[in-house]
Amino acid sequence: MIGIGLVGYGYWGPNLARNFSRQPDCSLVAICDSDAKKAEQAALAYPGAEIVDDFEKLARNPGIDAVAIATPVSSHYPLAKLALEEGKDVLLEKPFTRTSNEARELIDIARKNGRIIAVDHTFLYTGAVRKMKELVDSGEIGDLIYIDSVRVNLGLFQQDVNVIYDLAPHDISIAQFLIGRDPVSVQAVGACHEDSDMEYLAYIHLEYEGGLQAHFHMNWLSPVKVRRTMIAGGNKMIVYDDMEPSEKVKVYDKGIDIRRGDSMSLYKIYVDYRTGDMVAPKIEQKEALALEAEHFLDCVRDRKTPLTDARQGLSVVRIIEAAQISIDNGGKKVNLENV
Amino acid sequence: MIGIGLVGYGYWGPNLARNFSRQPDCSLVAICDSDAKKAEQAALAYPGAEIVDDFEKLARNPGIDAVAIATPVSSHYPLAKLALEEGKDVLLEKPFTRTSNEARELIDIARKNGRIIAVDHTFLYTGAVRKMKELVDSGEIGDLIYIDSVRVNLGLFQQDVNVIYDLAPHDISIAQFLIGRDPVSVQAVGACHEDSDMEYLAYIHLEYEGGLQAHFHMNWLSPVKVRRTMIAGGNKMIVYDDMEPSEKVKVYDKGIDIRRGDSMSLYKIYVDYRTGDMVAPKIEQKEALALEAEHFLDCVRDRKTPLTDARQGLSVVRIIEAAQISIDNGGKKVNLENV
Amino acid sequence: MIGIGLVGYGYWGPNLARNFSRQPDCSLVAICDSDAKKAEQAALAYPGAEIVDDFEKLARNPGIDAVAIATPVSSHYPLAKLALEEGKDVLLEKPFTRTSNEARELIDIARKNGRIIAVDHTFLYTGAVRKMKELVDSGEIGDLIYIDSVRVNLGLFQQDVNVIYDLAPHDISIAQFLIGRDPVSVQAVGACHEDSDMEYLAYIHLEYEGGLQAHFHMNWLSPVKVRRTMIAGGNKMIVYDDMEPSEKVKVYDKGIDIRRGDSMSLYKIYVDYRTGDMVAPKIEQKEALALEAEHFLDCVRDRKTPLTDARQGLSVVRIIEAAQISIDNGGKKVNLENV
Amino acid sequence: MIGIGLVGYGYWGPNLARNFSRQPDCSLVAICDSDAKKAEQAALAYPGAEIVDDFEKLARNPGIDAVAIATPVSSHYPLAKLALEEGKDVLLEKPFTRTSNEARELIDIARKNGRIIAVDHTFLYTGAVRKMKELVDSGEIGDLIYIDSVRVNLGLFQQDVNVIYDLAPHDISIAQFLIGRDPVSVQAVGACHEDSDMEYLAYIHLEYEGGLQAHFHMNWLSPVKVRRTMIAGGNKMIVYDDMEPSEKVKVYDKGIDIRRGDSMSLYKIYVDYRTGDMVAPKIEQKEALALEAEHFLDCVRDRKTPLTDARQGLSVVRIIEAAQISIDNGGKKVNLENV
Repeated sequence: MIGIGLVGYGYWGPNLARNFSRQPDCSLVAICDSDAKKAEQAALAYPGAEIVDDFEKLARNPGIDAVAIATPVSSHYPLAKLALEEGKDVLLEKPFTRTSNEARELIDIARKNGRIIAVDHTFLYTGAVRKMKELVDSGEIGDLIYIDSVRVNLGLFQQDVNVIYDLAPHDISIAQFLIGRDPVSVQAVGACHEDSDMEYLAYIHLEYEGGLQAHFHMNWLSPVKVRRTMIAGGNKMIVYDDMEPSEKVKVYDKGIDIRRGDSMSLYKIYVDYRTGDMVAPKIEQKEALALEAEHFLDCVRDRKTPLTDARQGLSVVRIIEAAQISIDNGGKKVNLENV
Repeated sequence: MIGIGLVGYGYWGPNLARNFSRQPDCSLVAICDSDAKKAEQAALAYPGAEIVDDFEKLARNPGIDAVAIATPVSSHYPLAKLALEEGKDVLLEKPFTRTSNEARELIDIARKNGRIIAVDHTFLYTGAVRKMKELVDSGEIGDLIYIDSVRVNLGLFQQDVNVIYDLAPHDISIAQFLIGRDPVSVQAVGACHEDSDMEYLAYIHLEYEGGLQAHFHMNWLSPVKVRRTMIAGGNKMIVYDDMEPSEKVKVYDKGIDIRRGDSMSLYKIYVDYRTGDMVAPKIEQKEALALEAEHFLDCVRDRKTPLTDARQGLSVVRIIEAAQISIDNGGKKVNLENV
Repeated sequence: MIGIGLVGYGYWGPNLARNFSRQPDCSLVAICDSDAKKAEQAALAYPGAEIVDDFEKLARNPGIDAVAIATPVSSHYPLAKLALEEGKDVLLEKPFTRTSNEARELIDIARKNGRIIAVDHTFLYTGAVRKMKELVDSGEIGDLIYIDSVRVNLGLFQQDVNVIYDLAPHDISIAQFLIGRDPVSVQAVGACHEDSDMEYLAYIHLEYEGGLQAHFHMNWLSPVKVRRTMIAGGNKMIVYDDMEPSEKVKVYDKGIDIRRGDSMSLYKIYVDYRTGDMVAPKIEQKEALALEAEHFLDCVRDRKTPLTDARQGLSVVRIIEAAQISIDNGGKKVNLENV
Repeated sequence: MIGIGLVGYGYWGPNLARNFSRQPDCSLVAICDSDAKKAEQAALAYPGAEIVDDFEKLARNPGIDAVAIATPVSSHYPLAKLALEEGKDVLLEKPFTRTSNEARELIDIARKNGRIIAVDHTFLYTGAVRKMKELVDSGEIGDLIYIDSVRVNLGLFQQDVNVIYDLAPHDISIAQFLIGRDPVSVQAVGACHEDSDMEYLAYIHLEYEGGLQAHFHMNWLSPVKVRRTMIAGGNKMIVYDDMEPSEKVKVYDKGIDIRRGDSMSLYKIYVDYRTGDMVAPKIEQKEALALEAEHFLDCVRDRKTPLTDARQGLSVVRIIEAAQISIDNGGKKVNLENV
């Protein structure tokens, strides 16, 4: 039986509580929220859990093996540090930390204490993203050429973070999962509302070794909700539309072959177009967060590295951090190795 | 009766021929194409027109009042120069010219010769774009905040120009038409196919005085065809989807109001969301090119400045040129006044 | 404080429980389900409610003012009869009863006992349907000409009822709500799976005085989910698409005017087409079942007739019954007054 | 060289003229239209063709081998009769004839004169319908269970025919092509505009041996354009959406298996649902009418029976005729063998 402590019962916390409470061999031991109203809601929904308003108490509870942290990102580092030092494994809401330095320190602390860190990159547990990973890894798509992602809606303006910290972890974690390596450079531009200094709109552009590019459009001020990613490979292309109720992933047997002409006509190129069937593969429907909770408990039990571990969390934070540096410097290209 | 000479009977030329031949008080006097096969097609379709393979002959034909140029962009400058010097008015396919210097010279030549230049920014004659212009100018949309445009498909790879020169004139001319002034800076990134040094994919980002931003995604290598522009104002937001068979323009009565909290809670912001009706206004269905041909003939007849005149053409070319400079310099921000 | 007893904790019962438990001045006193597993689930979710397996016990509980019945339709009559005779008001899941005779008897029993019957035609409490009612009643749509409704998906095959009893109550109750009177005749055709004698597919056609027609397509064996209703009036036309996440209701300013030619050309007709703006009016987002629970409690408290009362329930049951008679007689037209 | 004569240069005639004029070894010899304005248009577009206003002259022209008839349906019989008796092969616009008796007579006349009749069921030459035929014939779809087709828009009200004669030939010819046999019975209902006695809206329902059903919804007064057919088989299901610019045919690996329980629980059925990939197979893009013209010329040259021959035309006319009888008799079921 694994004992779980949860800190933060605001927007996402109740989803974590619900999913952990339904896992076998797992007990939701305590919930911590400093907001009295939220603490009351937690008490009502989970009569068996201890409700505390002081995180230290939760962190020192010997009945708790792992702590799930669903608080604003600025508190991730101190809460996780305390939990790790008290010998707890930790699952953190995305983004992992506010800065890459915080992320590196937590990785260090976890290593010293023999603890596990998982980051809640939920999308990597969806059937759609796992199917795309399978398609990319099998070679069916071919070498990746570009990824273009749009994630926009009339969104919840956040108090403490801008649109990048809010939305980019989703798309960057998906891209990193599919690509499997870090980009070389990061470039970003953005816009703030006239009454705020937080970006509500941003574009991030990543360049990888070998010419691969990834581009993300994030927007809290769009009249329509769009969540669409195009993934182009040398053989096939994928459109992943998360707003589709079914057929979220469509694989297009489309592409081009370019041949140069002979030396006499240097600039003459010949383009052959290929167009075949489109296939929307069957996608597993299981709730991503249920799968993630199950996987995290497995890792805690068997001392395994989670699919979405701290290194992946750090990789996402570094790219976000570089994007923010780029925005703050007028869209300058930032080499990731300098971050 | 206005006499028209057409040079270039490839992809777009036949559309110009068809539309001018149907206008009243207008005669398609001559067609010039150096490709024998295309010349033959022109002869078959327009038995009344003289078919020539030498542009000088057409440019010197006294029965011709105005010349329509639908050739590759690299030939725009010499052909238009000759036509203007021979006293002809000129309609040029987009983009106006290869460089802004060429554009400026042509403007100069036209002024000296008292000639009219029109640039074929066809979209500005569509019912959809004219309706959006009307909505923006009436104040219904409010101050513009951002424009985001996506124009992608598995496109015709061009021999002589990259995706920017091919597709960006559409979106930039629409944005400039709606906004009514030049951006301050231009930034762009792009990708080339491994077997070509021409960009097939590009993102362009424009910044205007006062915080307005415009972003364009152009792509010849997309599995799906998307032509969608979001135009956000302080009052309402527009989605213009050119792939919709009807209801191309949708106006959303959506937005936010941000209020800061009092001085005690500096970071506290309050966001109010507004959501009202969505209206898809009736759009005039008349073919844009027919309207454009009619308007050009009116300008020739009455010596008026065309809606899509050389200054607008120059404005688009400058932005494209700046975008290319930005790409060639690793995505560096380019001040437009330096171009 | 109104005491609610719920019978049936299968597919729909938990939704009723959740919504009544959240209403102010209302207490979920007891839940009855003969299935031990479901009774256990109910006990877990509502620790404050008494869990019984014998409906009589619930019906005779003096702390219960009103009974919500969410059991298979064949049990509606005996359960409601008992509850009404014990002095309880009753809310019944759709369809109201298996037969119109049962419906008439329940109405009679309720009248004799001064009790209220409400039927759970949930859709009439949605923002979309209420907006359409408002548009029709205001005269904006004009005289109704036809209603065409499609409700198909790869659906849950029911054990005890066919697709008509399962799906038609939704569309018929919406149509009756908008039209406000009974049809004159009912005609239906259907298809059964080779291994079953229950219709999985059916088409129902209603004719009203004055030429108005309504047609319903219901299907449990469709590869795609469609829930779309077209409502045509003399002035405007509505498309109600319940699968749209937003903009469920679209109002088209479209129509025709037909003029006959003079007497010399009897068959010559002139048709004028009108096409104006399309408007998707803002729709209230509140959960229909919450509104319905609130309204039912108001009716119980103030002894008012519910919006979806027993007469409306009877009207729907009669049409369904007539449709079944028509199917059983090879699609014969059935006059509703004979049912 | 095959000489073609065309009668009727209204809505569809120009399409036939264009397609025949582009076929090799074929000459558009003469065009007949009694309307002077249309005759003038024909003369302008086809300077090489003789323009006549008297069909007899065309029918007796020895340079003409085959006559294409694109006139209103009421004139099909007399025109085709004359052409056949003059020894010409005939291609008729759909529907073949006004009545099945006319159709039978023309078949007889053609047989006696050794002439070929083709009916212009254009859809059977589209890539989409041919692909569906291939899927059905290969057994991939399994035994057909039902076909449901919707063809509605704000349509051109016809002067001389109702919506059934105008639109049903498309859907019925597609259904007959896929199913390969006649239905047993036909049932139909419809609605007329208050100022007209022609149906603008109709539903037709066909029953086949073995339980297969087909249902068609045709409507000239719909606010939106829908052209969608669902074809359900025991193994897979197809959605054919002709409004999709690409991916018109989608094949869903979906279905159910029903097992009855043991004899103790007679009414207990077990339903297993299957859901697999969806595939949108590549569809040939060639214009259907070009293919049809080519095929007709092949048949004329080689004296072969056309894919869309007179028997198929008769089959469609019989079903339409039965549908009209059913409508005129209040939706009564009509046995096709009595028509």
